[in-house]
This record gives sequence, structure tokens and C-alpha cells, in this order.
Amino acid sequence: MNAEFSIRPALAADVPLILDFIRRLAEYEKLAHMVVADEALLSEQLFGPRAHVEVLLAFEGDTPAGFAVFFHNFSTFLGRKGIWLEDLFVLPEMRGRGYGKRLLLKLAGLAAERGCGRFEWAVLDWNQPSIDFYKSLGAVPLEDWTIFRVTGDALRKLGEMAKQV
Amino acid sequence: MNAEFSIRPALAADVPLILDFIRRLAEYEKLAHMVVADEALLSEQLFGPRAHVEVLLAFEGDTPAGFAVFFHNFSTFLGRKGIWLEDLFVLPEMRGRGYGKRLLLKLAGLAAERGCGRFEWAVLDWNQPSIDFYKSLGAVPLEDWTIFRVTGDALRKLGEMAKQV
Repeated sequence: MNAEFSIRPALAADVPLILDFIRRLAEYEKLAHMVVADEALLSEQLFGPRAHVEVLLAFEGDTPAGFAVFFHNFSTFLGRKGIWLEDLFVLPEMRGRGYGKRLLLKLAGLAAERGCGRFEWAVLDWNQPSIDFYKSLGAVPLEDWTIFRVTGDALRKLGEMAKQV
Repeated sequence: MNAEFSIRPALAADVPLILDFIRRLAEYEKLAHMVVADEALLSEQLFGPRAHVEVLLAFEGDTPAGFAVFFHNFSTFLGRKGIWLEDLFVLPEMRGRGYGKRLLLKLAGLAAERGCGRFEWAVLDWNQPSIDFYKSLGAVPLEDWTIFRVTGDALRKLGEMAKQV
């Protein structure tokens, strides 16, 4: 029998563990080269005075099993905030035990408690196991929307252009 | 010559104007049936004590021309917050004058001022004029990601399941 599963909000002392999860998730997504976060940045952004991001940590007994990073988004059509799940990750050796589902359910419960109208996240199109899992929970893919992003030099350039208008 | 264009943050007294913009945007997106927001909800969510959503209003002289609704998201890989543009809308009769671009540039400037690593939004796939416009500004479509959403009865059901685990 497995040690007991538990979920709790992350504390400032958990930043090294959170960074480790972020790196492992990036490796899984084949995006490890994109991780530039460090402990100082995460401490400020997750636990500083203006923090708006929340983290849940999952454990099997005392052993870290996974994490979820989320914040509130907003729907103008509903006039209500929602929960945006930025990252959900269960360590490969801890999979198949329902931990990912329990993290998702925990967040759905938080969404209900907080009066949220939506619970949303983004999935890589090749990640079929996750897609099947999300659909089994009643999540619907927004097939007709595409996310656009400006970052790095392109963002700096736009920011400079903003000074000219 | 046109009256002068200006952009300012919305105030609580602007809620009726914001709601009008939301409804006009929904009509343009052929989603008018989805708007349930009202003035009370918007006042609470945009200007209440726990508000986390911001609105910019654009004017031509004293005439409302468009709006942008945004909030901060977060990239775990960067360890930095970003700006998520939830809605951008310029009234059809005010288009072709560069107002949408100036709203976007204003937000890119805000992203730079606030130390954001990304500036992102979602676009309907049939909205080719907007897609071309965004690409011309250096925005990149995240073709391999799909947004998943749980809302309404499915979200309530998941929230109920959360109590059982």
C-alpha cells in the first residue's frame, strides 16, 4: 500500500522544490533550454508582497510527488474571474496513482469556493495521454483559438515603439 | 483631421461603457449569447478590493473608440509575470486609424515598465485581419498548444468530486 497522498499550498521555504519541479516539467516537455527561472525570481514572484501566483504541492507520505502552479484570469463575457492552471506535473515515477487527477480536482474545488466561472489551461498537442485525461474530466478543447506571444527582443522593440506614439 | 486620440486607465464610473464594449466585442465574435456580465459583476471584479484585472479605454476626442482588458499571468520557465490581454476591441467605425496598434503598443510599454517577460493573447482562427496585424508586430502563434476549458455544469461536477477525494 502506498504512503498517504496529501496536497498543501507551497510556502516560501519550498522554492528549491518548486524550481526542481519546473526543471523536470521542462525536460518532459522537451523545453529544458527555456528555463531561466531561479530561486530569487521565484521567491519574489510567488511569495513577494505583490505575488499573484499560487502553488500547490503534492506528496506521497513525505516524498514530493507533483505540483500545480495557478493564478486567476478573467472572463469579460462572464464578468467573473477564473482559474488558469499554468503548470501541472506529477513525477514520472509517481504516475498512474491518480495524483494528477486529485490535483486537478483540488483546483476545481478551489474554483467553486472562489466563485470562479472557468477553469482553464493549455496542453501541448502531442501530449495525447494528458488530452485524453482532460477530456475524461469534462474539459473541452478550444479548437478555434490560437495563443499569440511577444517575448524577448520583439517585446523590447514593441515597448520602445510605445514611447514614440 | 481626426480629433486627438488618447488612452487612459478606466475608472469605476466607466463600468457602463466597459459593458457596452464587451457586448459589442461579443457581437463581432459571434458570441453575443455568451455574455452574462452585468454592471454589478464588473464593478466588483474590476474595481472591488480584490480586483486583479485592468482596463484601458481609448478615445477620439471625447468619443469612446475602443478598450483593452488585461491582467498578469506568469511563466514558470521565465520566473516572471507577463501581461495577458484578454480583450482588445476598436469600434468598427473607428478602425483603420491605428488605434488598435496604439492600444497594443501601450500594453507592450506597460509590460516593459513592469518587468514582464511575455505579452500574450488568444485570437479566433477565422480572424485573419487580426492575425496578420499581430504577426506584423512580431507576435508568434503558439501553434502546438491548445487551451482546455471546464465551465458551467462540468466545473460544478468536478468541484463536487473534489469533496470526495
